[in-house]
Amino acid sequence: MRTIEWDHASCQVKMIDQRLLPGELRILRLNTPGEIEHAIRTMAVRGAPAIGAAAAFGLALAGYRSDARSPTEWKAELLAAAEKLQTSRPTAVNLSWGLQRVLRSLDGAPGTIDELRRVVLQEAQKLADEDVEINRRMAMHGSELLKDGDTVIHHCNTGALATVDWGTALGVIRMTHEQGKRIHVLVDETRPRLQGARLTAWELQQYGISFDVISDNAAGHFLQRGAVQCVLFGGDRMAANGDVANKIGSYMLALAANDNQVPVYSVVPTSTIDLNLAHGGLIPIEERPPEEVLGLQVDSQPVFPSGVSARNPAFDVTPARLLSGIITEAGVLRPPYEPALRNAVMACQPRNQHRGNL
Amino acid sequence: MRTIEWDHASCQVKMIDQRLLPGELRILRLNTPGEIEHAIRTMAVRGAPAIGAAAAFGLALAGYRSDARSPTEWKAELLAAAEKLQTSRPTAVNLSWGLQRVLRSLDGAPGTIDELRRVVLQEAQKLADEDVEINRRMAMHGSELLKDGDTVIHHCNTGALATVDWGTALGVIRMTHEQGKRIHVLVDETRPRLQGARLTAWELQQYGISFDVISDNAAGHFLQRGAVQCVLFGGDRMAANGDVANKIGSYMLALAANDNQVPVYSVVPTSTIDLNLAHGGLIPIEERPPEEVLGLQVDSQPVFPSGVSARNPAFDVTPARLLSGIITEAGVLRPPYEPALRNAVMACQPRNQHRGNL
Repeated sequence: MRTIEWDHASCQVKMIDQRLLPGELRILRLNTPGEIEHAIRTMAVRGAPAIGAAAAFGLALAGYRSDARSPTEWKAELLAAAEKLQTSRPTAVNLSWGLQRVLRSLDGAPGTIDELRRVVLQEAQKLADEDVEINRRMAMHGSELLKDGDTVIHHCNTGALATVDWGTALGVIRMTHEQGKRIHVLVDETRPRLQGARLTAWELQQYGISFDVISDNAAGHFLQRGAVQCVLFGGDRMAANGDVANKIGSYMLALAANDNQVPVYSVVPTSTIDLNLAHGGLIPIEERPPEEVLGLQVDSQPVFPSGVSARNPAFDVTPARLLSGIITEAGVLRPPYEPALRNAVMACQPRNQHRGNL
Repeated sequence: MRTIEWDHASCQVKMIDQRLLPGELRILRLNTPGEIEHAIRTMAVRGAPAIGAAAAFGLALAGYRSDARSPTEWKAELLAAAEKLQTSRPTAVNLSWGLQRVLRSLDGAPGTIDELRRVVLQEAQKLADEDVEINRRMAMHGSELLKDGDTVIHHCNTGALATVDWGTALGVIRMTHEQGKRIHVLVDETRPRLQGARLTAWELQQYGISFDVISDNAAGHFLQRGAVQCVLFGGDRMAANGDVANKIGSYMLALAANDNQVPVYSVVPTSTIDLNLAHGGLIPIEERPPEEVLGLQVDSQPVFPSGVSARNPAFDVTPARLLSGIITEAGVLRPPYEPALRNAVMACQPRNQHRGNL
């Protein structure tokens, strides 16, 4: 199954609960946009492209659950649901992109509430289908950069679980593997939520790709010793100049790669590019609850002394100067990034460019 | 009490079992050099200066437990014990430094086995006492670099627990605090063994110093946002050119500090300087068992899928070019480091320079 999909029989959204992996593969069935919002906020679903699809399906749920008596009332309810969904997480721009794209499908759409429901669901479904296709295209472009025998450091989870299916940075690795090139992955565990340890390791096991897990701290050592040929990560929001907000730790990893002349690529669909922000300093960075840092145990004992406080920024910004290239569905972009990104968005999103937040 | 000390009544070595903190403060009593070796290997005692003292006391235990019938036989046993202790961990040079210093105290020492025992114990005791004094001197020098209101990022544990007492990098922070300057510490948790989370957080609580814990990945973000004025860490072995092997992750942290023009200091006693190695690439880097990476739990559930393999280098090398200065008991050294380090070692260790491994 896909990480997230619409169940036509029940008019529900089905998604893998990513909080329980790798211990348990449980499928959630969500009925309302409020349940989608909660799933995004608590990271039952995470990963910028997957969040975009979840938000779009959330609007479809709003449309189907509404008992509005007129199309006008129905549309107002949809807009209210979108505004609420928009607040669930601040950094990944795919969230507002998905919402805007679905709302825009209603522009000038006449008809009954039933017809409008179908328009919204159709657009959400199309967005999800396209996500898979876009990921495959990025994977093809990216795979040309990897050679037989390469070792890659991968940060966080960017696989099928972070998207509707296939994956962004991990999609590149998967495609390279399927092409028969031998590839080895050093999987950053990705503190604090350990998406590398939990999700990427689990996915790579499914695909039969060779890997070792490392603590995030160890990446610099392997880069310094010449053991790594490429660093790949995804992206949650890329500014117009190519600065990219991604999972916390990406910036330090990119610095270490640069210090050792190892290429670094951010793999992002054009839906992750926010041309409204001139540079990365303007991207809102979410700070999440300290419990995500402090909840660790070893031998069933807490690791941290009690009464300790923690800071927990979920993302950092990797400046564009540290990127060797940006892998999009339009191809591998090279500096200067500003015109390249603008052209890629124009080519791939002619009608769906961001208009900022709702 | 001190982290490690000789108990005169029982002729045993007492040390805090650092594997159990912060949950439990248990004192180990060790009887033989083999038990010391095991304690170093399993990291019941860790931190370069503390390891140096443990090794020295290990030789004292060897001297007291020996039932040799002649001074010659006794000395041969001591040398055998030293060779065994030497193998317990490869990176921190204080280990061989401590062993060599105690062995050298026997050079030309005449007398009975009982007299030789006392010579060895006296030298180990002197080394331990000096460690506390050296740390205080480093702390004084370092505290001049910190201002009221500064926020410092600190990596691993370099406090009283990593030394005989007081601490190296954490000693600088402690001294600054005792001088009445307000200081805030961002404590890197320091995967994989989490010495920051377990030990540094615990020590800072005892001292009443303000701090927040962060995941190692978050350091770059706080540096980038201008929230940090200084980065401090210790050192396990410094080459003649100032390259320093320290806890894994130090290199990436130093890179992030440099990228944001934040000063980075390695705080090391001259006993950590190995003039026999021209540069950091020659320092042996220990790789420890994968279980240290893979043993994490959250909510009493394992984090990693079963059957996963991990790589676990315990140290990395921070090139001297990334250090703003080196804080030693001889003062704050500035580039060019090669002559400065040589002078500092000559001044502080006139008779105790390293002669390489045993």
